[in-house]
Amino acid sequence: MSAEAEIVQLLQDWAAAVRAHDLDGAVRGRSADIVMFDVPEPLQARGLDAYRDTWRLYFRDPGSRRFALQETQIVAEGNLAWVRALLLCTTDDAPAGRLTMGLRRIDGRWIVEHEHHSFPMPLAVAGD
Amino acid sequence: MSAEAEIVQLLQDWAAAVRAHDLDGAVRGRSADIVMFDVPEPLQARGLDAYRDTWRLYFRDPGSRRFALQETQIVAEGNLAWVRALLLCTTDDAPAGRLTMGLRRIDGRWIVEHEHHSFPMPLAVAGD
Repeated sequence: MSAEAEIVQLLQDWAAAVRAHDLDGAVRGRSADIVMFDVPEPLQARGLDAYRDTWRLYFRDPGSRRFALQETQIVAEGNLAWVRALLLCTTDDAPAGRLTMGLRRIDGRWIVEHEHHSFPMPLAVAGD
Repeated sequence: MSAEAEIVQLLQDWAAAVRAHDLDGAVRGRSADIVMFDVPEPLQARGLDAYRDTWRLYFRDPGSRRFALQETQIVAEGNLAWVRALLLCTTDDAPAGRLTMGLRRIDGRWIVEHEHHSFPMPLAVAGD
């Protein structure tokens, strides 16, 4: 399998786990030292325990049952990769969120070391 | 120079250009096809013209005069890299934003193909 195909599989398994509220599946393949920039506060969640808590929180949102990636781009070379996508993550039919991910392949297995999930702010709030 | 040292230089030059409201410097080293997930709407800005507009907007914010990266992590291998950092980007003394970046080295030069800038949402707004 190509690196891209391996990462497609990882992303598909992950999104399915999130939709199923399968907490172990949602955190599978994450680094013990993962740094998560999530949609809600805090500014960053460091480490697997804090990462797991971000999913516990999100599972309370009905949008989590529809969690899916759109317009995914995977850029991989050697043992490094990054991913960007839009996120279907609310009860709306249109994507509301954005995802960026940093991965490293360690001992032949892709590990997510960093995730960044966000919603854009309304222009008025952002200080326009 | 190592890949990491080259990217440190790119990030330092970029942040200095943003603080100086040097629009050409702020967009230097970006891909013609860059996809930007910015703090304010829209959901994504595609291409260099749309990317440039995100900086025109941000330069109206007095926080842009203090734009700086903190807790920067650079992960590079071969001709691929990703970066994460916290952003000092408001008039507050503490970082309020998060940055993730995807880069590729093309003809020996690092090119930013993707950026993701965001603020976390207050928990109440995020649906807690």
